Amino acid sequence: MSRISAIGFGQRLAAEALGTALLVAVVIGSGIMAERLAAGNAAVALLGNTLATGAALVVLISVFAPVSGAHFNPAVTLYLTLRRQAAAGLLLPYVIVQIAGGLAGAILAHGMFELPLVQVSSHMRTGLGQWLGEFVATFALLATIVGSRRAPAATTWLVGLIIMAGYWFTSSTSFANPAVTIARSISDTFAGIRPADAPGFIAAQLAAVAVATMLLDWLFALPGLPTHQTQTSAEDFAPVKGVET
Amino acid sequence: MSRISAIGFGQRLAAEALGTALLVAVVIGSGIMAERLAAGNAAVALLGNTLATGAALVVLISVFAPVSGAHFNPAVTLYLTLRRQAAAGLLLPYVIVQIAGGLAGAILAHGMFELPLVQVSSHMRTGLGQWLGEFVATFALLATIVGSRRAPAATTWLVGLIIMAGYWFTSSTSFANPAVTIARSISDTFAGIRPADAPGFIAAQLAAVAVATMLLDWLFALPGLPTHQTQTSAEDFAPVKGVET
Amino acid sequence: MSRISAIGFGQRLAAEALGTALLVAVVIGSGIMAERLAAGNAAVALLGNTLATGAALVVLISVFAPVSGAHFNPAVTLYLTLRRQAAAGLLLPYVIVQIAGGLAGAILAHGMFELPLVQVSSHMRTGLGQWLGEFVATFALLATIVGSRRAPAATTWLVGLIIMAGYWFTSSTSFANPAVTIARSISDTFAGIRPADAPGFIAAQLAAVAVATMLLDWLFALPGLPTHQTQTSAEDFAPVKGVET
Amino acid sequence: MSRISAIGFGQRLAAEALGTALLVAVVIGSGIMAERLAAGNAAVALLGNTLATGAALVVLISVFAPVSGAHFNPAVTLYLTLRRQAAAGLLLPYVIVQIAGGLAGAILAHGMFELPLVQVSSHMRTGLGQWLGEFVATFALLATIVGSRRAPAATTWLVGLIIMAGYWFTSSTSFANPAVTIARSISDTFAGIRPADAPGFIAAQLAAVAVATMLLDWLFALPGLPTHQTQTSAEDFAPVKGVET
Repeated sequence: MSRISAIGFGQRLAAEALGTALLVAVVIGSGIMAERLAAGNAAVALLGNTLATGAALVVLISVFAPVSGAHFNPAVTLYLTLRRQAAAGLLLPYVIVQIAGGLAGAILAHGMFELPLVQVSSHMRTGLGQWLGEFVATFALLATIVGSRRAPAATTWLVGLIIMAGYWFTSSTSFANPAVTIARSISDTFAGIRPADAPGFIAAQLAAVAVATMLLDWLFALPGLPTHQTQTSAEDFAPVKGVET
Repeated sequence: MSRISAIGFGQRLAAEALGTALLVAVVIGSGIMAERLAAGNAAVALLGNTLATGAALVVLISVFAPVSGAHFNPAVTLYLTLRRQAAAGLLLPYVIVQIAGGLAGAILAHGMFELPLVQVSSHMRTGLGQWLGEFVATFALLATIVGSRRAPAATTWLVGLIIMAGYWFTSSTSFANPAVTIARSISDTFAGIRPADAPGFIAAQLAAVAVATMLLDWLFALPGLPTHQTQTSAEDFAPVKGVET
Repeated sequence: MSRISAIGFGQRLAAEALGTALLVAVVIGSGIMAERLAAGNAAVALLGNTLATGAALVVLISVFAPVSGAHFNPAVTLYLTLRRQAAAGLLLPYVIVQIAGGLAGAILAHGMFELPLVQVSSHMRTGLGQWLGEFVATFALLATIVGSRRAPAATTWLVGLIIMAGYWFTSSTSFANPAVTIARSISDTFAGIRPADAPGFIAAQLAAVAVATMLLDWLFALPGLPTHQTQTSAEDFAPVKGVET
Repeated sequence: MSRISAIGFGQRLAAEALGTALLVAVVIGSGIMAERLAAGNAAVALLGNTLATGAALVVLISVFAPVSGAHFNPAVTLYLTLRRQAAAGLLLPYVIVQIAGGLAGAILAHGMFELPLVQVSSHMRTGLGQWLGEFVATFALLATIVGSRRAPAATTWLVGLIIMAGYWFTSSTSFANPAVTIARSISDTFAGIRPADAPGFIAAQLAAVAVATMLLDWLFALPGLPTHQTQTSAEDFAPVKGVET
């Protein structure tokens, strides 16, 4: 058995599902804790939410990247598929487990805080300004991934940092992830989003994928550097490519 | 005298005790300082508590890992022993000095803030939600250690980050450590836990060890990577193994 | 076509413009978000502003440095030109796109938060104390760049950190950048500066460039280390030099 | 001229003085800014003070360590001299420029904030608890330096982190530095200390040097690792040793 073929498909999907679940549990759970403790100061609550999310992202990407690529995000998987850096056969299974994992993470957060496990968010997040925010947030996330492909170890940290910044500088607080957006729609807490508002956010995220697909390879083209390498190494996907052939 | 045999058993236990003592002094001391200054805003207090704990963890693991492995945590020592990555003869001595060091750290924190040196905490922390929180926190800590075994230098940072995140995203604020739980039961301050509530927390932590023992080796199996290497290198334990033979 | 000549002039200017735009969008956008949420506690608002700016700086410098050098700052480009570490022909185009990018970033931030796209700031920032603050902030920034030229990967982080510190320890909150100063003058928000006050800030920044030019090469001279290498590698500028010849 | 002899004595003293001055300017300046903005919430003020100090320490040590060793602290210079890791002839000149630089940094901070340049602090900091705090803070700082001598690049970050933690977990907020203590006595601001209280703090710091001198070499002894190497490399001091011979 070769080195490459030893990462199993089930192991890969488990990593992607568990990683997305923990990411959502952190986003929602830290929002609940922060709002409970912050005595009405939403900026203080957002500071706690930001620290927890950034810290967890660095950890989750670090430990799961060698197994599944640590996308945790249909927008990232779609971008990599469009740029032929991920096997096309991965797109659907990855997106399914990302969404399922995200929903499980919301339920886990609610369980830890003894809230109803599935809720309907009433947190309104809509309008041109916030859609522009989601576009910028997702574009910045993809640019961070592509722009740091020379240094995959750095990508881990940079993704955590760009999301931390996005929590503050984008009017939408930087969801930047369709699976996380869906998961946050079943949480009527600090991090929630009304189900009716989710499609607008997801559309803005996908628009950013489209623009990134057209722009980033040119912007970050460097002599001697293959344009297709990211923190998701080719090896990670080779077995699945093997499944396709 | 060989390179390996030069780390003495007493030196090793001293490192484990002193590291755990300082860790607990940071957790409790920063909680006292934060609560005193935060004018009733518990989220602001938790921010200070979080920063101090995360920063100190990175430092303490960095400096003590080459000496003792820098467990500071019976759950970690137990996991490594079960996975045969630590010599079985270390388990009891390590757990004893971790608990003793933790208690000393609580006393040190109280001394610095001129409080009664030994107290009985009245901070209630109980219920299914918080036990689930402790389970998740401890499982995430072990996954972080196992998942980063390819890059021991990163483990240091990732452990600090996952605990920082855990302070916010778990309903129990992520004790994730039986020795620290016991030490916090003798402190009637921000970080305290009622002695009657400690067993529930410790049981949840041990349940996470059990699940991690069954799951993590499969989840993080990578081709060409031995499953037994962690930030606690084999060398660290070799002299003690030598003592056993 | 050689490796060096493959980074195009347009690509380089696009990177410098986009990077400066995103930097300003973060500075202004996070200021708007922070002030809206902070319930009147300006220190809490500045904490959010600081975290977002520092995090984004690390990301933007990391991803754009290999393309354009990631100056985003006329003071840095001027310093490097004076020290003959950047091609003289770059100075004017870089400064133009930095200013244009900065203005675009302010407009982007306003758009995301549904504010008038171009504003006139009424935020007074003037006086000897703040000019001294800008001098110190800019000098510290240049010293950070020169002093870390042995370790370009570190420069990325250190620049983010020195600006984070500067937000708090300088009375001017550390603009340290003429293009960002101009951009902030069209934003009547937390991060704004009255247009009438911008020239004083810029003069102080340029004074720091002058003093740094005289002092830093001596201060950081190390045996065996060429004094002219910075995080902006010679390769980055070689093609443009080629354009000049 | 050899590589080693090229770092001049004046350059070295300038680095030590400028680094200590900027460190104190950050400690005092960020304290002033934080207290002004924090609306009476001292924990929020301490968060800003902590972030700025930690960030600046990492930068200042990174850029000045290759020139002077980046002690900025008579307790560190004394410890290294006692352990024969710094040339004895450096002790007096280093301590003098550290104290002078620290005082200049206090004056610089006051100038930036348009306060009287030299003040008499009325901030009471005394008592057994705080002296114990200073002892623990200084001991932890020295343990961090000695314990990370295998990885000098990490020392830079770890020193910043242990001081950040110390701001919260020690009752004295971790001065841990006689030169900084003296400088803070001429500032009647957030970071000040009454001149009458300075000797008690300095005595506690020196007591920690004494204990560290006796304990740390044993605690951190590792096979194959010379006990005398720290982030202050032998090369840094060789020219001055040359002056002595």
